[in-house]
This record gives sequence, C-alpha cells and structure tokens, in this order.
Amino acid sequence: MALKAKVLYDFHSENPGEISIAENEVVTLFSEEELEGWLEGENSRGEAGLFPASYVEIIRDHITSNNNGFSLTQTKVQTSYTSSQPHRGFGADSSSFHTSQGSDDDWDDEWDDSSPVANVPQGLSSSPPLHPVATSLPGRGSSQQQQAKSSATVGRNLNRFSTFVKSGGEAFLLGEASAFVKDGDRICVVMGKHGPEWQEDPYPFTCTIDDPTKQTKFKGMKSYMSYGLTPTHTNVQVNRRYKHFDWLYGRLVERFPVISVPHLPEKQATGRFEEDFLSKRRKGLIWWMNHMTSHPVLAHCDVFQHFLTCGADEKAWKQGKRKAERDELVGANFFLTISPPSVPLDLQEVESKIEGFKTFTKKMDENIIVVNTSINEFGRKQISGFKKEYQKVGQSFKLLAQAFELDQQVFSVGLNKAISYTGESYEAIGEYFADQPRQDLDLISDLLDIYKGHLANFPDIIHVQKGALTKVKDCPKKEGELHDRCNIISFATLAEIQHFHRTRVRDFRSQMQYHLRQQISFFQKITAKLEDALKIQAI
Amino acid sequence: MALKAKVLYDFHSENPGEISIAENEVVTLFSEEELEGWLEGENSRGEAGLFPASYVEIIRDHITSNNNGFSLTQTKVQTSYTSSQPHRGFGADSSSFHTSQGSDDDWDDEWDDSSPVANVPQGLSSSPPLHPVATSLPGRGSSQQQQAKSSATVGRNLNRFSTFVKSGGEAFLLGEASAFVKDGDRICVVMGKHGPEWQEDPYPFTCTIDDPTKQTKFKGMKSYMSYGLTPTHTNVQVNRRYKHFDWLYGRLVERFPVISVPHLPEKQATGRFEEDFLSKRRKGLIWWMNHMTSHPVLAHCDVFQHFLTCGADEKAWKQGKRKAERDELVGANFFLTISPPSVPLDLQEVESKIEGFKTFTKKMDENIIVVNTSINEFGRKQISGFKKEYQKVGQSFKLLAQAFELDQQVFSVGLNKAISYTGESYEAIGEYFADQPRQDLDLISDLLDIYKGHLANFPDIIHVQKGALTKVKDCPKKEGELHDRCNIISFATLAEIQHFHRTRVRDFRSQMQYHLRQQISFFQKITAKLEDALKIQAI
Repeated sequence: MALKAKVLYDFHSENPGEISIAENEVVTLFSEEELEGWLEGENSRGEAGLFPASYVEIIRDHITSNNNGFSLTQTKVQTSYTSSQPHRGFGADSSSFHTSQGSDDDWDDEWDDSSPVANVPQGLSSSPPLHPVATSLPGRGSSQQQQAKSSATVGRNLNRFSTFVKSGGEAFLLGEASAFVKDGDRICVVMGKHGPEWQEDPYPFTCTIDDPTKQTKFKGMKSYMSYGLTPTHTNVQVNRRYKHFDWLYGRLVERFPVISVPHLPEKQATGRFEEDFLSKRRKGLIWWMNHMTSHPVLAHCDVFQHFLTCGADEKAWKQGKRKAERDELVGANFFLTISPPSVPLDLQEVESKIEGFKTFTKKMDENIIVVNTSINEFGRKQISGFKKEYQKVGQSFKLLAQAFELDQQVFSVGLNKAISYTGESYEAIGEYFADQPRQDLDLISDLLDIYKGHLANFPDIIHVQKGALTKVKDCPKKEGELHDRCNIISFATLAEIQHFHRTRVRDFRSQMQYHLRQQISFFQKITAKLEDALKIQAI
Repeated sequence: MALKAKVLYDFHSENPGEISIAENEVVTLFSEEELEGWLEGENSRGEAGLFPASYVEIIRDHITSNNNGFSLTQTKVQTSYTSSQPHRGFGADSSSFHTSQGSDDDWDDEWDDSSPVANVPQGLSSSPPLHPVATSLPGRGSSQQQQAKSSATVGRNLNRFSTFVKSGGEAFLLGEASAFVKDGDRICVVMGKHGPEWQEDPYPFTCTIDDPTKQTKFKGMKSYMSYGLTPTHTNVQVNRRYKHFDWLYGRLVERFPVISVPHLPEKQATGRFEEDFLSKRRKGLIWWMNHMTSHPVLAHCDVFQHFLTCGADEKAWKQGKRKAERDELVGANFFLTISPPSVPLDLQEVESKIEGFKTFTKKMDENIIVVNTSINEFGRKQISGFKKEYQKVGQSFKLLAQAFELDQQVFSVGLNKAISYTGESYEAIGEYFADQPRQDLDLISDLLDIYKGHLANFPDIIHVQKGALTKVKDCPKKEGELHDRCNIISFATLAEIQHFHRTRVRDFRSQMQYHLRQQISFFQKITAKLEDALKIQAI
C-alpha cells in the first residue's frame, strides 16, 4: 500500500511542479524523504507534484511499502515535473495557436523511429527536458529567499521552475554557460536609431507555402497532408508535414530563450482534411513562415535552414534532425552566441523600456481580444443577418414584380423586369456580404492570432531579462562580467522587442491597407450591381 | 319597458346594417313591425341593426311600450345605419391612411360655423348620408332574392347596404338619376391603345406643398399647422389646414363613386407638431396631391379647384364650400356626367378585364405588405444592427490604435493615426447606415402607403361595376338604355383601372430609380470614406 499523508493546511501551488492540496485531504507520497522541506506525491485529483512537507502529516500506520517505483534519491532529480511542453505563453490559453510538440496523430511513424531522445539522459518523460536541469531543489517561501539573499551576494534563484532559471538566463548570468561558438552561430545586436536591434539580415529571403496535397503511405492505409515549401534563396521545393513544423517549433523554443518564436496555427485532431480547416491552417502557416523568414536570427538558424532546404533524402534529414536535437547552443549557451554593440547600457533606461513594453503588450493583448471579438461578430452578422436582410428585401421586390407581372400591358413590362432585376441584385448583394468576411475580416483575425501568440511569449522573455536585472542590482559591484552578461541579456531582449514593433507596424499597416482595399472593392462591387439595376430601371 | 324578443336560431350578420344574434339571447326590439321579414333592434352586445324576424320570438308579457323614440315607419327609413364615414376600403384597416372626415381636433371652429349639413334632409347622424337613400327596405336571403329575380326582369338589389346601391350605381342603372349636367362637368372616356381611358388632361398642373407653419388664433389659445399650397396653374399660394384636406376628401369620395380618391395620410391626435410626424404627414400629402393633380377627373373637379385656388377671403371660401356640399352630381348623378366613347363594349371582355384586375389588386395588396414589412425591418436593422456592428468594429479599431499609441516611435505614429482614422470611418459608416433608410426606404414605404389606400378603394369600385353587369346579364334584352348605362359604368371603371396602372407604373418606376440612385450614392459615400482611410493608411 502506498505511503499516505493527511493535509494539515490548504496549500495553493504557485509554480510549475507544485500541486495544490486542501486541508484534511489525504495525499499519496511517492517517498517520505523531504527535499529541502518539500515532499512529492499525488493529490486526490490525481495531480502529481511537490508540496511543503510541513503542511502534511504522514499517516504512519498505513505504511506497508515506500517503494512504489517512484522513489526519489537526493542526488538525482526527476524531471517529470517539467512539463513535456515548452513552457511558453502564460495567458496564452485563449490563443488559438498551439505550442505542443510530439503529439501529432501520426507522429509515431517511421521518420521518427530512431528515438530523438535516446541520448538525453534525464527524465521519465518521453520528451527531452527543455534545458539542463540544475541540481538544487526547490525551496519555498520568502523567508528562505531572504535568507539566501543575505547569505550570498549573487545567489541562485530558489525557485528552480522560474523562467529565468529554466531559460538558462541565470546559469548564463552566473557564468556557468560554456560552449564553443562558431562564427556562423554568432548573433549580432547593433545600435539602431531607436535602440538595440538585431543586425539586419544581409541575405533576406521569403518562403512560399503551397496548398497542401494529400499523401498516402502503407499502401493507402495512412494518409497525411504535405505542404510544398519553396524558399526564395534556394528556389527548390521541399515537402513538409505539420508534424515537421511542430518538431521545428520545439527546437526553436528550446534554442532561443529571449526570442519570440511565432506559434504554429492550431492543430486539429479531427477532420484534418476538411477544406476550411486546411485553408485556415495554411494561412496560419504562411503567417508563421512570414514571421520566421523576417526574423534576422530565426531565419538563418541551422535547424530552420535544415527544415527549409533538406530534400527527400531520408538519411540527410535524420542527420540534420539529430544534429539539431544535440545542439549545444540552447538555453544558457544561446546567450554566448550574442555579440552586443560596444556601447554602454543605462540600466534605468532599460528598465523603463522594458516596463513600457510590458504595459504595451498587456494593453495590446486586451485590445486585440476586443478587436477579434468585434470582427468575428461582425463577420457572423454579415454572413447571417446582413445577408438575410438584403435577401429578404430582394425577395420582396421579386414578389412585387410577380404581382406586377399580372399586368402585361406594354408600358408595364419594362418596370416588371426592372423590379425583378433589382430584387435579384439585392439577393446578390446579400451574397456579397456573406462572402466578404472571408476576404478581409478573417485575415485580420489570422493576423491577430499570430500576435496573440507573440504576446503570450513576451512575459517569459521579459521575465528572463528582469531576473538578470534584479540579480545585478543586488550586486554591490557596478561593473564586471556579471554586468556585461546582464547587458547581453538586455541587448537581446531589447533587440527582440524592437523587432516585434517593426514587424507589428509592418504587418498591421499592410493588413489594414489590404482590408480597406478589399472593403472598397466590396462596396464598389455593390455599387456596380446597383448601377446595373438602375440601368435596367431606366430603360 | 322596451319590447323584447328571444332569439331562436343563431344568425350571423352578412351585410352592413345587420347584426348578429345568438340562440337564446334576448334582444331589444325598436318596433315590432316587420320590414319585409326583418326586425330592427339591439342585441346584448349593444349593437343596433336588423335581423330576420323569423329567427326570434317576441316576448309578449314584457311589452309595456313600443315607442321608445326609435320606432320606424314603413315609408321613411332612418339612415343611421349608414356609417358616418364614407364607406370605402374593405380591408383597408391596416392602411395608415385615414378616411374619416369631420373629426379633426379643431374641426369645430369658426370656419365651419354654418352647418354644412343643414340643408341635407335625412338622418339622425351629424354627418350627411353619402347618397340619396332609396325607399325600399332590406330583404334577406337567396330565396327572397330569387323570388325578386323571377318576379321582375331587372329588380332592385335587396341589400340596401351594398356598395352598388349606396354608390348610386343601381339608381343610375335603373334610370332613376336625373340632374342638369353643364358642359364643364362633362367627363370624357376615350378609347386608348389599351382600352378605355380618361381623356388626357389638356391643362395638366402640379401643386407644391411647403413645410407646414404653426399658426395661432384666439390670441395664441389655439394653434394649428398650415400648409402653403402653390398650384402651378395659378402660381398663387393658398394656405390649408389638414382639416381642409379632410373635408375635401369627404366631398370627393361622395362625388366620384368609381374613382379611387387617394387616401389622406394618417391623422395623429397627439403630438401633432412633432417634427417627424409633420415631415411624414407632409410627405404623405405630397403623394396625395401628386395623385390628385395627375388624375384627369379629380384634378379639374370644382371642389378641388376651389380648395386649390380660393384665397384668404372667408366669404368666398364659405360660398364655395356650401356649393360643393350642395353639389347634385354626386352618387348616381355622377354617372350622368360621363361621356363614353362611341364604340361597343364586349361584356365578356369587360368581365375578364375586371376579373383580371381583381386578381391583380389582391396579389399587389398581399405583396406590398411583404415589401413593406421587409423594408421596414431592413430600415430598423440599418438603424440599430448595422450601425451597431460598424460602430463596434470602429470602436475596437480605435482601441487597437490606443494600445499602439503606447509605442511612440517615429515609425509607429503614422500607423496609430491611420488605425484610429479607420476606426472613426467605421463609426461614420455606421451613422451612414442609420441615416440611409430615411433617404430611400421610407419613401418606398410612403409610396406603398398611398397604394395600399388605392387598393382598398378598388373592391368597392369593382363592386359597382359588377353590380351593374350582373343586372344587365339578368336582363333578356341585349340592347337599350340599360345596356348603355351599364356600359357607362364599365367605361368609367375601366378608365379608372387604366389610370391606376399608368400611375402605378410611373410611380414605382420613378421611386425604384430614385431608390437605386440613393443606394448608389450611399455606397459611394461609404467607398469614399474608406478611400480616405486608405489614403491615411498609405502615408
């Protein structure tokens, strides 16, 4: 029988890896060994994780065995607390973009036979952990934290699950990152007119995504959709499935802690071949690709280039895949690749810029929800209400014409036809209204979706920068390597923020222009229809 | 105590003047004298009228007096059954046009002091009866009718309340009409391309109606609205109140049995000076005037000319008024004024034309109700739903701009302004939608209103013609004065029908054209607004 404990006080989980427990609840312990004041177990809702040892009382008379295969040792921490999904996107729950990897319907097929995680040592999870896992264990509560602060000038964060720690930001700041960085991997931040920027892409390219085609394998037993991608810098088409995008996405998130990797469009388990869904996914992938190729860092990273250029040669594909999965320059080591501009950074200015951007993203996030709601509602109204109204008027005009047709005198006939035609025109206008949202509103909605994804990324990105800044502010020494490393993080963060703004202005400008042009031609189409009707009336 | 009777069988009234009575009900008799098998009395619901004598049993023990001031004599029939309103418009109840006369709020003021009905001999009613009342009394039931048919070749209708009788059609047909007809009163029907037509108006004119002005009298104690009318043939403005229109309408209905006198716009007792109501009434009066002046017969009749041309001279006004009220050429005598073309009329063709027109009016009546419902609903939707949707989208764009304004970098500012302007444009477009129905849909609605009035007139007009035709078909003689007189009625009816079609085609053509032009300029206005927004986006 499993080891049990009775909960003495309510505890609400505050960090990933922790679970909430309620007073009087009986929880199952995986081990009775405390880990810096924490115990691991499963609550009555079936959630597994950590909770404070002092909050529970072990029920001794129930112990029959304390080895149920989940026991922990103090020297080896299981990583099963780490979500198998890259932890991005606080508040992104409402986003229609999907961030997981490795759970695609047909992920389990041959391209993936050689387990990519075979060489990753840690974890019970089938997915590799995001970052090298630190060996220290979670401490809890502000008293412990303050204790840490007072005992060391620049200590470690006690919450091993904070993004700052997980991203590798802390490890880098503390000088623990080390890897060999080739020149080709070097990422430059330069000082632009508006502050730090990613160095402009010297070899910009774009990439088209064709309509997906249905492919079959196992003699037609399995089918899947394949997208033809043609990057302009090679002009050679490669075929990729959604799961390849998904895999790539996982690598990118792991690789670039302070870069907002665009979210992939929603995955849909059922009806994957339905036209509407495919068309929506393709549009989402086009936006995604567009954000990828227009990002100077993402566009040229190895794994993305492998994805874009590797042909049908299975062996080459697997080689590149394995290389990407073994990439050392992930997490903390990513910061090693950054070459900052040789200008000083004013910490206060940085802080205020970051604060400003935090406010900006919050407001933008709130307001694009409003925009999305209104335009979706507007679209629905056009498809239903507007169409219905115009068609009802059209039909009633046609009824009037039918009544008038009972009089077939010469001087009446023209009018009868004209009214009937006007009725048809109104019906047609009803159809125009119903068709229109797909031409413009839906595109704005797609744009908002990709930005919702970015906005969901930024809290974590900001958290990394803030974590570094907080550490440095605590340090009495005002210069030195710690500061330099913090500046690198700040430079990268500010460059990414600037890139976000640039892209945002570009995307929204072009989308609004496109929308207005569509609306103008929509109303011109209506006008032309009415002009036709008038011409017939005037005969 | 009044004379009572017990009802033996249910009787459902089928004609004006009759009342329904139910088995076992006790009714009050006004007299026990039967009038060709009918008794007069009051049922338990307080309705007074005729019912078959054989359906009731007089309760003898209750008789204390048979003279309660309502007794009838056999030689003089009270006309109180005749509605005080000109009986037009079966099925016109839903029409927003008003047909009554003499009940305007301030009808009882000085212009009318000398009672216009003083010299009209019959009736308890304060209004004059429409037509000279025949001296025979109502008979009932088909058996009696057949009896009548077999006993006389061309007998009288037994239902004294049928339109055929009331209009004077019967009296004319039977050669009972006689009056002196001046040349100026003569109305010509000519044979046109499409059949009988009213002779074209040799002196066509129109008449403008200015915005009404508020007038006061009795030192401001009373106020009323006065409309300035300027007919083109005199070019002198005269001032008329709604009650003058109402009086005129009453005269015209009385005067012209087979002409569809356009109904006046709805009268509204309260809030008479409210702008919306006045504007709607004025538009209604303009339509009314337009139908009056474009009718060759109505346009030139004395009473209308008096109305249009008599100036502020009170004495002259009253003189003309009295003359009109004493006009002999009303009802049966109207038919004396008609000069038919000297071509034979094929009775069967006439009958089929009339039948066709009956079908036409029925269908048109049904379908304009549908049109009216749809366009009113459409108008409401534009004012509420459409406006709301555009404004919600506009507001959400403005919110997006507000979020974006938190980034004040040079490259952002233009976009912020542009999105904000686009938002405002959408709000403006919402207003355009809300304003539009007043510009076009409301006018169609006004047009439909005046036609609803005409359509409500035609059943009676057709009834007169059919009554005459039925009588003539019953007559074994195939020629002679009876036929000539029947033909006169048919010529007049067909001419009126033809006039209706001409006017209908003219009105609907011009209104539909106007509507389309308005809609075109509406959508062009929207397009222009969006083009402005695009220009700003493109800066």
